[in-house]
This record gives sequence, C-alpha cells and structure tokens, in this order.
Amino acid sequence: MDRVKMGLIGHGCRGWGLLEMLLSLDDVDVIAVCDKYEDRARSAFDKVKEKNGNEPFMTTDYKELLKTEGLDAVLISTDWELHIPIAIDAMNAGVAVALEVGGAYSVQDCFDLVDTWERTRVPFMFMENCCYNRDELLATAIARKGLFGKIIYCSGSYSHDLRSEVTRGKENRHYRLRNYLTRNCENYPTHELGPIAKILNINRGNRMVSLVSVASGSCGMEQYVEDNKDNINPELIGVKFAQGDIINTIITCENGEQILIRLDTSLPRSYNREFTVRGSKGMFEQTSNSVYFDGQKEYWSPVEYFDEYKNTAEQFKDMLPDCWSTITQEQLDAGHGGMDYIEFRDFIDRLKAGEEMAIDVYDAAAWMVVTCLSEESIKEGGMPKAIPDFTRGAYKTRPSLDVVKFNF
Amino acid sequence: MDRVKMGLIGHGCRGWGLLEMLLSLDDVDVIAVCDKYEDRARSAFDKVKEKNGNEPFMTTDYKELLKTEGLDAVLISTDWELHIPIAIDAMNAGVAVALEVGGAYSVQDCFDLVDTWERTRVPFMFMENCCYNRDELLATAIARKGLFGKIIYCSGSYSHDLRSEVTRGKENRHYRLRNYLTRNCENYPTHELGPIAKILNINRGNRMVSLVSVASGSCGMEQYVEDNKDNINPELIGVKFAQGDIINTIITCENGEQILIRLDTSLPRSYNREFTVRGSKGMFEQTSNSVYFDGQKEYWSPVEYFDEYKNTAEQFKDMLPDCWSTITQEQLDAGHGGMDYIEFRDFIDRLKAGEEMAIDVYDAAAWMVVTCLSEESIKEGGMPKAIPDFTRGAYKTRPSLDVVKFNF
Repeated sequence: MDRVKMGLIGHGCRGWGLLEMLLSLDDVDVIAVCDKYEDRARSAFDKVKEKNGNEPFMTTDYKELLKTEGLDAVLISTDWELHIPIAIDAMNAGVAVALEVGGAYSVQDCFDLVDTWERTRVPFMFMENCCYNRDELLATAIARKGLFGKIIYCSGSYSHDLRSEVTRGKENRHYRLRNYLTRNCENYPTHELGPIAKILNINRGNRMVSLVSVASGSCGMEQYVEDNKDNINPELIGVKFAQGDIINTIITCENGEQILIRLDTSLPRSYNREFTVRGSKGMFEQTSNSVYFDGQKEYWSPVEYFDEYKNTAEQFKDMLPDCWSTITQEQLDAGHGGMDYIEFRDFIDRLKAGEEMAIDVYDAAAWMVVTCLSEESIKEGGMPKAIPDFTRGAYKTRPSLDVVKFNF
Repeated sequence: MDRVKMGLIGHGCRGWGLLEMLLSLDDVDVIAVCDKYEDRARSAFDKVKEKNGNEPFMTTDYKELLKTEGLDAVLISTDWELHIPIAIDAMNAGVAVALEVGGAYSVQDCFDLVDTWERTRVPFMFMENCCYNRDELLATAIARKGLFGKIIYCSGSYSHDLRSEVTRGKENRHYRLRNYLTRNCENYPTHELGPIAKILNINRGNRMVSLVSVASGSCGMEQYVEDNKDNINPELIGVKFAQGDIINTIITCENGEQILIRLDTSLPRSYNREFTVRGSKGMFEQTSNSVYFDGQKEYWSPVEYFDEYKNTAEQFKDMLPDCWSTITQEQLDAGHGGMDYIEFRDFIDRLKAGEEMAIDVYDAAAWMVVTCLSEESIKEGGMPKAIPDFTRGAYKTRPSLDVVKFNF
C-alpha cells in the first residue's frame, strides 16, 4: 500500500482537529466524511475540498460511508456510545480501524470487539495519543533501561476542568453532557492508563486482574451551572448530575503492580495527567518532569524539592525515540504538542507495511472495560471487580511491544 | 491546675524529641520516665536531671509509672501495639492521656478506648501534630471562610522514605520493623487523615462510613536490604516483607465527600504529605503551597502551573491563627517546624483549663481504626469495610471544633 484512503466518522471538536492533521499527511487521501449532524459533515466536506481539492463522499449514515469504494481505513471519533459498534461494523466490512479513545458501556461490547478482530484480522488500532507523548515516552525509555528498578506502582489522572465544555451553549450536542447527567464512573481512563499499561506490559506478560472504584459526591457541575446561568442551556439549571466529581480507581496487576487512576473533570483546577512511575530504585513524576533515584538528596519541603528536581528527566532526553528527537515545528503544532502527529504517522506506517498495531484490540478492550467495571464497582460501594483477560491466556507469552522503537 | 506533672512512657526517637520539648515548657514538670529498655529510661532520667534538676521516677514497667504520686498526665510514645492498652490503663488510673499517633490493631480496641473514656471522663488527647501544622491550618482557615465552596474531596499521603529507619542497625529495636515484616496495611494514616477529618467535620456533623484499601506488591525494603547489606542486621538479608510498598485507601463520608490517603514509605522518594482540598470553587495543594480558584488562569503544563502558582496560599496568611502568627524561633525549632510546640502547648493549656480536647477519643478511634480495617480490606482484595460510628449517633449534633481559634 502506497497511499491510504481514509474515511472519517465524527466531526465534533476532536474529529475536526484530526481531519486537519490527516489532510497534512502526504500519503493519506480523505475520501469520505460522515457525521450524524449534516452541518458538521458539510463543514468536513468543504475542508477537504479546500485543502486537498477532492470532493469526498459525504453522508450522515456511517454504514453508507463504510461502503465507499476503495476505502482502506476509518477514523472513528464519534460519541463514546458508538465507538465499538462502528469499529465492529468497519472490521466486518474489511475496513481498517483507527478508534478514538473513550470507555466502554459493557464487558460484552469489549469481548465483541476482540472477537470481531480475531475473526476478521482487519487492522485495528486504539488511538491513545498519550502513549506517544514525550513525557510518557521519556519515562518509558528510562524504565526500559532498568533505572527505576522493579516498577511496583504507577499512577496518573485525567485532571482537566471540563465544566465549560460539558455545559456550554444554548444547544449542547456534546455527548459528554448526557454521560455526566446519567452515569457515574471512570468515564475516560485511557490517557493515563494507556501509557501505564504499556510500561507494565499489560497483555504482554502481565495483566490487570481487578479494580475497585469509588466516586465522590457531585457538586462541581451544579455549582458551575448556578454561577454561569446566562451562558448555559436553561434546562440545566437546578438539574442534578449523576457523575461524581472525583473518581479514584485502584487496579491490581498479576505481577503485584498497583495502578491508581483518577478522573477529575468537574472542579476548578489546571490540567495535569500526573503520570508517575515508582520503582525499587527510583521514580518519574510528570508534574515536576523529574526523576529521583535512590540516594539522591531528600527534601522535607515539597516546594523546595520541586524547584530542585523539576525537569531533571531532561538529562535522559538522548534516550527519546527518533520521532521525538527529530520532530519539526509543524509536527509539534499538528495537535496536542506533537503526539497526535506521531501517533497517526505510526498508524499509517504500520497499516501500509502490514505490521502489527502498537495498541491493539486487546489493549483497547482491557483499557476501555475499566469504565463499565468502574460503574459497577461504584454502584456497589467500591466492590472489587475482576478484569477479564481478553487475550484468553495468550498474554502469558506475548512479547512486550512499545509504541516506538527506542535506540538502545 | 497551675502546673502539670507529667510522666513519659516510651523514649525511642519520638519520645526523646518530645522529652526535650516538654522540658522547655515552663509550666510542665517531668516527674516520671519509663521505657521497656532500661538504657533508654536511664538516658531520659539523666536528661531530666541535667535540664531541670529534679530526679524523676524511673521504671521499665509503665504500670509502675502510672502509680506515681501526683501524676497529672502521661505522654504515650511507645510502639504502636501498646498505645491503646496503656491509654486505657492510664484513664482507669485517673491519669490524663496524651497519645502519640499510630494505627489500631482491632476495631474492638478502638471501642475499648472510647468506652473507657466515656466511663472515666479522664482528659484524653490524640497527639496528631499535623493538625497543628501551618499549611494544614492555612488551608483550614481558607476553607472555613468558604472560599473553596462545598468541599467534596480531600487527599493526602504519608510519603516518607523509611527504608533506612526500618532496617538500620545490627540490633534493631524499631517496632516498625516487625510491623513491616508481618503486616500489610495502611499502618500510619493519621498525619494526612487527621487534618482532613477536621476540615470535613468528621464526628461533628459528618462521619466516615466506609473504606476500601489496596496494597501494591512489596519490593522496596528487599531491594534496600540487598543494596545495603553491610549496614543491616544480617538476619534481614533475603527476608520477605509483608508490607506492600504503596497502600491506597479510599474513604467515603456520609455527606458525599471522598478522602484518598496513601502510605508510601518503602520506595525512594522525597518527603511529602500532599495535603489537598478540593471544593466546588477552588482548591488548596500542599505540594505547591498554592490556592487555585474558579476563573483563574489554567495551564496545560504542570511545571508552568507550579511555577506560577506556588506559594499563592501565602496571600491568606493573615488568616493564620495567633499560635502561628506570633511563633518564635525557639518554638519553630522545638520539633517538626513548630507544630509540636503548638500542639503540646494546646494540650497543656486545655488540660489546665479543664477544656474539651481538640482531638478527642472519638477522633482517635475513627482515625486509628482505618489501619485494621485497611488490613482486612487488603486481605480480601479491596472489599469495602464499614467504618464504625464511635460516637454512637452523637456525631449528628456535635458542633464543629477546630484545633485552634481562627480570628474571624
């Protein structure tokens, strides 16, 4: 395959940004666009025509898009509810899948996704862009060198104030809104869990065996609506949100490692993923972009520690993979500080070469299932929930696979 | 009561520091000292004689100490196992109790402590010094002013690399060692939980209703022993430690608030308690000593955020209570940056005035019980455990009581 003919399904905020990025890749043709809202599909059509000159097939029905002649792959960036159904339909139609992130609504959906891939073997990649981010790959490189010793604990969060995004506008099309109104769960686990799972070789010699998940009460969205009445759909005023403000989920892995993830999206705060790796010989902390090794100077003051240690991870930047050491300004500007470009470049390259995808259907299932298991655990007051082994035992001998090749 | 005649039980590292501090208070007489190791009792005796001129009663049997004529109060800073038994014996002997921190070994022990106090009404205070620390009280002041809005989440940790303390020496008397070898639990919850419980009015209008606790595997101590063979009791080489390196415990409160606490004592790291308060209108973060309120500038870079926001909590320092705004250098140097002096001054003042203790037997029981419930939860794979209401319903109407008086 020399060039990849792509269809894009879902042109909300994320889909729009990715369309622009894909149009900048010189071996990708966008030949079809789809959104259930016709105005969005039309905007995507216009954008393709303006940027690349061709007129893509345009539809509001993704099943029509999947019939497009010559279609090699689809990018699915719809609401979360449709992620797995569309991915399954695409694989059944023989169309490769790039699936945007989000959580699952049932364990069975995750098994259906895996089973469909095993039956069709159509290329599938879960587009967890944070797995390609610089911080996470720098920490992974240091980990792979063994400098942290045995890694026994990793933590992270999706700490992102989404109150405006979820509630804004007189007419709100954001699928997050209905989820926040009606569900209470770890609804977006993969930005932190993905890179952690790769470091811990989940589904490749290790697996996640159980989780507990607990939600705080909910007050952030309601306070925000109350304080911003004039800019918000009046139907939201006084409405109760089901989603707890903070969800902590603790995952236990077969080899004894613990993972803590936190959803933190409806209280005032600044952005952070808090990616943290803890080993018997050292640690990486994204918040300070630092490394700390056994025997280095300890501080009793966190502020002094931060000032002294911040950016010490940079001493290892020579370990960064080529995609980061040679990145251009244009690529850095292509989305989320470079990681989106690197991720999609990797997907396209692997698709063209017929290579195994770096984040596969087993990863997708294991990471996405956290959402519906978290929902069950929360409902039952924090009861532990078994996490299925979607590899059906194969994880024991599957070799480790990083999303990039390190130069050592 | 003009002066307080005190006995001290336990002269390890903590007891020794507190002896020095108490000897500096001009309305306290240390009239008895006790340690099960005679050399330690002797050192304490010598210290009292050298510093204050009197010869205290000296014994290796705490029951003998409790019989000392004229004894007003005891400070218990022994191994954790003896905290509750000695406190109960002291109250039964009519001797007021200052109980050093630590966790409980059984729910029944906590009820016995409460029942003994309710029967005897002998003054009892749980000496959680972090409740008196500057950061925590500054955050509490801002919270009491309502600036964080509804507080829905608090978190903290005991992040303190104890590997050397637990393992050091050819002959190791540290009670932590046997606990780390044989138990697996949140063994030291109160430095972070105490100040959080006070902010959330636990036992005073609110209560903790359940917890889940999960342990990571254990590799930090064994790595440390392996790497420091020459300075360590040879009997520890190759020995398995039962204590997991990281314990996360999620507590749910009756009014919907969530508390996350983490024990983090056997992997390389710097000290931090990570005291964090999250409300519908703002947050406090001890790590950066910062406050962030709704509408303030957000950052996508945690390092930039930290640099911009660090020490912004200081804009509220006028809200600090008198004990902190008038503290002297001598008091700051008396232990843990001043909080030990302020705490013991408060205990002595309340004892002399016959006032209610700021951290009472119900607080002690509710905070200490986290340890044994955590042990059970961990054993059962993270099963939720109900936290007893040691006030037997009285919490519903007990008024809020801060450890200090704020000037507003």
